[in-house]
Amino acid sequence: MDGYKTPLREISFSLFEVLGYEEHCAARQDADSLDQSTAEMLLAEYGRFCEAVIAPLNGPGDAEGCRFVDGRVTTPAGFQDAYTQYAESGWFSLSSDPALGGQGLPPSLSKITSEILSSANMGFALYTSAIPGAIATLSRYGNDGQRSLYERALVSGKWNATMCLTEPHCGTDLGLLRCKAVPQEDGSYRISGTKIFITGGEHDLTENIVHLVLARIECAPTGTRGISLFIVPKRRLDREGELGELNGVSCGAIENKLGVKASATCVMNFDDAKGYLLGEENRGLAAMFTFINASRISAASQGVAHAELGFQKSLAYAKDRLQMRSLSGPKNLQQPADPIIVHPDVRRMLLTQKAFAEGNRLFNHFLAMQLDLVGDDSAERNGAEARLDLLTPIAKAFATETGVEASNLAVQCFGGHGYIKEWGVEQNLRDSRIATLYEGTTGVQAIDFLGRKVLGGLRPAFEELLSDMEGFCAEFLEQEQSYTVYGKTLIELISQWRDLTLLIATRAEADPEEMGAASVSYLMLSGYIIVGYFWLRSLKVALAAIERKASDTGFYQAKLSVAAFYFDHLLPRTSAHAQSIRAGGKSMMSISADHFQF
Amino acid sequence: MDGYKTPLREISFSLFEVLGYEEHCAARQDADSLDQSTAEMLLAEYGRFCEAVIAPLNGPGDAEGCRFVDGRVTTPAGFQDAYTQYAESGWFSLSSDPALGGQGLPPSLSKITSEILSSANMGFALYTSAIPGAIATLSRYGNDGQRSLYERALVSGKWNATMCLTEPHCGTDLGLLRCKAVPQEDGSYRISGTKIFITGGEHDLTENIVHLVLARIECAPTGTRGISLFIVPKRRLDREGELGELNGVSCGAIENKLGVKASATCVMNFDDAKGYLLGEENRGLAAMFTFINASRISAASQGVAHAELGFQKSLAYAKDRLQMRSLSGPKNLQQPADPIIVHPDVRRMLLTQKAFAEGNRLFNHFLAMQLDLVGDDSAERNGAEARLDLLTPIAKAFATETGVEASNLAVQCFGGHGYIKEWGVEQNLRDSRIATLYEGTTGVQAIDFLGRKVLGGLRPAFEELLSDMEGFCAEFLEQEQSYTVYGKTLIELISQWRDLTLLIATRAEADPEEMGAASVSYLMLSGYIIVGYFWLRSLKVALAAIERKASDTGFYQAKLSVAAFYFDHLLPRTSAHAQSIRAGGKSMMSISADHFQF
Repeated sequence: MDGYKTPLREISFSLFEVLGYEEHCAARQDADSLDQSTAEMLLAEYGRFCEAVIAPLNGPGDAEGCRFVDGRVTTPAGFQDAYTQYAESGWFSLSSDPALGGQGLPPSLSKITSEILSSANMGFALYTSAIPGAIATLSRYGNDGQRSLYERALVSGKWNATMCLTEPHCGTDLGLLRCKAVPQEDGSYRISGTKIFITGGEHDLTENIVHLVLARIECAPTGTRGISLFIVPKRRLDREGELGELNGVSCGAIENKLGVKASATCVMNFDDAKGYLLGEENRGLAAMFTFINASRISAASQGVAHAELGFQKSLAYAKDRLQMRSLSGPKNLQQPADPIIVHPDVRRMLLTQKAFAEGNRLFNHFLAMQLDLVGDDSAERNGAEARLDLLTPIAKAFATETGVEASNLAVQCFGGHGYIKEWGVEQNLRDSRIATLYEGTTGVQAIDFLGRKVLGGLRPAFEELLSDMEGFCAEFLEQEQSYTVYGKTLIELISQWRDLTLLIATRAEADPEEMGAASVSYLMLSGYIIVGYFWLRSLKVALAAIERKASDTGFYQAKLSVAAFYFDHLLPRTSAHAQSIRAGGKSMMSISADHFQF
Repeated sequence: MDGYKTPLREISFSLFEVLGYEEHCAARQDADSLDQSTAEMLLAEYGRFCEAVIAPLNGPGDAEGCRFVDGRVTTPAGFQDAYTQYAESGWFSLSSDPALGGQGLPPSLSKITSEILSSANMGFALYTSAIPGAIATLSRYGNDGQRSLYERALVSGKWNATMCLTEPHCGTDLGLLRCKAVPQEDGSYRISGTKIFITGGEHDLTENIVHLVLARIECAPTGTRGISLFIVPKRRLDREGELGELNGVSCGAIENKLGVKASATCVMNFDDAKGYLLGEENRGLAAMFTFINASRISAASQGVAHAELGFQKSLAYAKDRLQMRSLSGPKNLQQPADPIIVHPDVRRMLLTQKAFAEGNRLFNHFLAMQLDLVGDDSAERNGAEARLDLLTPIAKAFATETGVEASNLAVQCFGGHGYIKEWGVEQNLRDSRIATLYEGTTGVQAIDFLGRKVLGGLRPAFEELLSDMEGFCAEFLEQEQSYTVYGKTLIELISQWRDLTLLIATRAEADPEEMGAASVSYLMLSGYIIVGYFWLRSLKVALAAIERKASDTGFYQAKLSVAAFYFDHLLPRTSAHAQSIRAGGKSMMSISADHFQF
């Protein structure tokens, strides 16, 4: 089994050559500048740590899984030690507030690193994934006492955190939430109810776990307007702030899942647990959305991570495995067969993975940079906030759907060998599969993107995005002599995209089901176009590098090939989605629920 | 967890209402006629058996898996008993030669039933799946002694069989095969070598296993022209034909796999094992292709089986799970939320599964009926043989690729609940995934279909297929007043298909890599069109039934909706494939192997 190699060259290309990350960081207010060489050193160090300490636990952690005995969860061998090293290396504190022990680096950085950790070991990564969202939520909604107590402990890596939303009868539909909170005289609350699918709800990695729990205060309104957010620690704190007795929180079971087996997915029972209101009464859902959006951006980076890991494994195999001769004649005469990378269809599968990994990485880095601007309180803030709101659902859904496709192709490159445990690609496929389900399914992201954002309050941000993209295409066509067909294709597609948006808006006015029927096709179409835009930006950078005779020409030549592959073979999928949107929802809605099966 | 319900109404519709199976059976020579009511009774009985005896072992068999200790394989609890019942019920003998104890029913029947068994329990089904191929191979190439000994024991279900092709260094590329055969004075051979990925290579279900083994006789030519086929029984037979001592065949290990965990996938070591030549020396690969083609048609039916099983499970969940309100207003006022089947995107996912299951079922039944004609020695024989050769790779690849897509959507319908073991849909996804890999990957089928068949010797059969389809569309347009747009779409697509074929042929003359680069897109485009043709045929039947006021109008109304859904939302994918084909292979081939990763 080949190990994971951090794609530092690719990450640098995306951040510094395409997206101008150095200038972006230099322009930040109230923050030390992060120059390219410092950032690259830091990412290289992070990559080395993940390759050496975390990645070797990936296969064994999957095979061993978590154990649940008498309410206690034991993580796989080696996880405790690796987690301690991770915390002690300060990786939890990168982007956090220096006043609380953080290193004050841009928030984008923790999203950029999260791809690396997820490739190295998705099961392990999930024990860290709630922490940035919890920190962000505490930082925005917590009072000074809460911040200094809980946020500080999270920044240090001493404690862990969870997000407790889902209940057995409600996942997407949080308005149905039943978990209840009873006010106590001391200002705290007693929290009772059952939460399910709680990632890292219980484990042996930290001495305490800070649960952020949605619950309904007694007599609160029904629906989503009666939900509040609470801090419920696993262990209470005594008067000196030292860890005290266990709170009324217990793990009832862990789930037996398709993948991410090293990550404990817990049923959590709250039984008169002591909790503290975070933010305002009945405004819990809004507060929790800080957390949810952070988790959605992390999920998008997992889509990249799985595409990248599967790509690396299947590429190594394709170079090594000898089978059949090239269609254009033997390439490897000393051996009885050619390596399968000579076969066009194997290349198609490798390039699809590569094009998705790199295209979505650019999209995610772009999104992560908006996070910096939001925190920045600058003139850019409003635009960045709107871009984040608009693009988070599509980044999450598109990167994870294509991440699953890429992981599936990695298995396919191995033939029958991909189906067995040995090579790790079937694990990568299983691990990738969670990402289109949690933090809101693809269908939920699609309704959010189309219904609430594009056809809702973010129409101006949407128009601005399209104009920006068109502007870039026009500039590309003016300045470049080659590959102009791709610029023209993109301009044409953006124009279709605008027309389709209008078409859906018009139809949805008469029948709101039309919006739902078009939503996923619309999201995928939008994703292909946005990633196409980032590939065009990559193409431009690569052309310039080749023209200036950059030292590593091979790297830039490869960028041209992959960009061309994306435009030739992946972007055309937009035409299928466009036709599906134009056809409308009639055939979906005309069949009665009783007539689906006889 | 909902059980499996045999889709008898759907199978009848396909066979008797669309494909004229009764007339087809009546026209068979040398065989008892199989009328509709007899066939339906038989399928219902088979379905009941599978639902009652086999399906309940599906989840437990996956959880328990096979055990391997000291060379012996233990199948999951209940498998032995179920297997014995299956054999004693005569299900192995349905389509076999009455002279050897078979029931002499059409060969198509064993393909039709194989979908049902694979839905009920894919792991179990794999212990039966090699038998029809082994019987067909023995029947065609075996001498009288071999047939009466081995074929008879397989027909009775007393013994089991395997197909031993793959070796560690050769899967697709059988020319690299090393397993060797040394002639003995008694006319037998000593077989030595290692075979991997042998389904049911060792188990506790039958007293003997008949391995059909590809090996190279000493001094035979290299490559595929020096390969012979051998019968190698697990236990030798003594002079009286009774089971004697163990042969030199042993299981070295079983694979730890993504799915079909109840099926033992074995490493088989042949160590001077006694073997008997089957067919002619050095013509083993041709003989084995009888087996391989039978297995490919079975794999196609597995694609249908997984789409059907996932559909049934996700449909039941979608009707039951309450979450959010319909976009067009509450539908279920007595409850706090609507069942998720009201949501258009959930319907999209259900209809995609249903459209693939039913469309591919028609395609597979059509193919299975060609098997009857081939066995029939009638005037139809040549045409049927050509159709089988032409269509087997595409039926296999298209049904299994869309079967995986459907199984994946079944998981998606469950949201996060689809990721846990409880509902069986994650198992169905894992089980489905093998089918695009074994019996030749999708890429291998695509090269076979395009390179060897369409652009090779089967061009006339291909032209005839297209003409038949165009003829049906023209007739449809003449006779029908509604849904004519779909007939026109299909005519247009068939014409594009012909043009694209020419385009690839022309390009491939100059550069053979162009054929490989186009192959999978071409196969998928062809699959969508062929299944579109079967949906148009279904549409026609449904329209006629509604016009004649058939009793179960709801069934036929549903057919109209699903056909429309297929034409509106799935068939448009052809445009993406067509664009990809037109773009050609340049961007796939231009990147050097060294430049894929930096």
